[in-house]
Amino acid sequence: MSIREVGPRDGLQNEAPVPTEAKVRLLDALSRTGVGRIEAVSFVHPKAIPQMADADEVWKSATKEDGVRYSALIPNSRGAQRALDAGFTEIEVVVSASDTHNRRNLNRSTADSLDDIAVLIDSLHAAGARVEVIIATSFGCPYEGDVEPARVAAIVDRVVADGADRIAFGDTTGMATPPRVAAVVSRVREKHPDLPMLLHFHNTRGTALANVYTALQLGVTEFDASVGGLGGCPYAPGASGNVATEEVVHMLHDMGIDTGIDLSALLDVARMAQEIVGRELPSGVLRAGPRLPLAR
Amino acid sequence: MSIREVGPRDGLQNEAPVPTEAKVRLLDALSRTGVGRIEAVSFVHPKAIPQMADADEVWKSATKEDGVRYSALIPNSRGAQRALDAGFTEIEVVVSASDTHNRRNLNRSTADSLDDIAVLIDSLHAAGARVEVIIATSFGCPYEGDVEPARVAAIVDRVVADGADRIAFGDTTGMATPPRVAAVVSRVREKHPDLPMLLHFHNTRGTALANVYTALQLGVTEFDASVGGLGGCPYAPGASGNVATEEVVHMLHDMGIDTGIDLSALLDVARMAQEIVGRELPSGVLRAGPRLPLAR
Repeated sequence: MSIREVGPRDGLQNEAPVPTEAKVRLLDALSRTGVGRIEAVSFVHPKAIPQMADADEVWKSATKEDGVRYSALIPNSRGAQRALDAGFTEIEVVVSASDTHNRRNLNRSTADSLDDIAVLIDSLHAAGARVEVIIATSFGCPYEGDVEPARVAAIVDRVVADGADRIAFGDTTGMATPPRVAAVVSRVREKHPDLPMLLHFHNTRGTALANVYTALQLGVTEFDASVGGLGGCPYAPGASGNVATEEVVHMLHDMGIDTGIDLSALLDVARMAQEIVGRELPSGVLRAGPRLPLAR
Repeated sequence: MSIREVGPRDGLQNEAPVPTEAKVRLLDALSRTGVGRIEAVSFVHPKAIPQMADADEVWKSATKEDGVRYSALIPNSRGAQRALDAGFTEIEVVVSASDTHNRRNLNRSTADSLDDIAVLIDSLHAAGARVEVIIATSFGCPYEGDVEPARVAAIVDRVVADGADRIAFGDTTGMATPPRVAAVVSRVREKHPDLPMLLHFHNTRGTALANVYTALQLGVTEFDASVGGLGGCPYAPGASGNVATEEVVHMLHDMGIDTGIDLSALLDVARMAQEIVGRELPSGVLRAGPRLPLAR
């Protein structure tokens, strides 16, 4: 079981900006929870995403723990170069299965993004890095509605042919439900049985853990999650975005599945995250505590 | 698929008291959503539970819809008589699988409560009513911790022998996870394959819909839910109690399972419930809307 903590990047990128010092503190605390992977920063244009303007400084100041795999998200070749210069060897790029979402998010068509990604993969591979392609809106698009698993599968085929090392399926606005998860996972697995596959759920409509459970039953072992549920839209109080890491870990541990994560340490970090963003985070386990005092 | 709406009773009983008129308005609006069953009121001592002091008046003023089955919760023979006098033919009684919880909640041992229930079942049957026994803390107790499925199963055996018509398993403080749900359901089903069985989940730690999904896979077709998630403790803002009806319905409909409920009408009632209790309710579907504008 492999949890990737995305609070420092995906989480903080979708919150009001916080000081560099706080980002480093959060990242360092997460590195000591036992989590195996952390999405640390994104190298994006500071005008586009001011929350990540200090990515180089954050990463330079962070204490890198042995045994933790850190990754960075990049939008283009400029970001790729920054990520490589910073020493990252695990790089994420993103494309939306929905063309409308891709145009609104990246200002180009899905087809154009796929062409860009093919070039990025080559140059990142040449520099010795591995590339994960994140397919956003894999389970539905807020503009287009349902997204056919065939569209998602076609993108997988394309990026795998172009050399992608790993795939992540993003439930960008919380539209996934169990049968939709099963449809995408089964379809992709059938054609690419050995492709490393990660699922990224939002808890916008309460289904995140049902989706995780569905994916577990299908043999998926990699999930994104965000400490405290960091990354809910700050302008809609209480709105829920990324599923909270402690909720995923809490359920997995009670199912007898080890994540390597110390839940108690993770909850300390969730409290820190809450203090950093200055609002109550949407995490039931943070609010109520684990089901048992001694639960891990 | 049968959803029982518990907002008017279990929901409002765990909120700060609201006016009689608001209770009637909520109940009437729910009756028009297409939901098949509603837990309407409880007949308890007004000093013990002031929120239900006006149960007789609420029920008398409510518009009873054909095709909706209404039920009432009762704690003892006095409550049973009030429920019968009010015309209820579906009556719920409660006992905790955990002795400590039973003592704190009902001021007697689980064994004593079971003896009381045996007597209540006889008198209610004699009056022509059906009796559902709700087993609280079926998946864990906040005082005792884990509750063995064998203890739950033994209570089922006992109350079935005493004539209980139906059983509900309550996840009283949100301690259920998929394997715990599977353990209780499988164990009880094995011995009582035809016993009508209902599951009542709280979303305290994010697992409610994962638990519903687990139970669905095991063939369970009856679930409690509370409009808007009414019934979270009012003194812990944002704390999540009963799973929100619209979250259950939203997931079921997207899974192609009809509930008979008009989701759009239900969301209108959830907004009404929010206005009645004067606080934001913990429901993702209420906050974010359905995954599609046209979703039902």
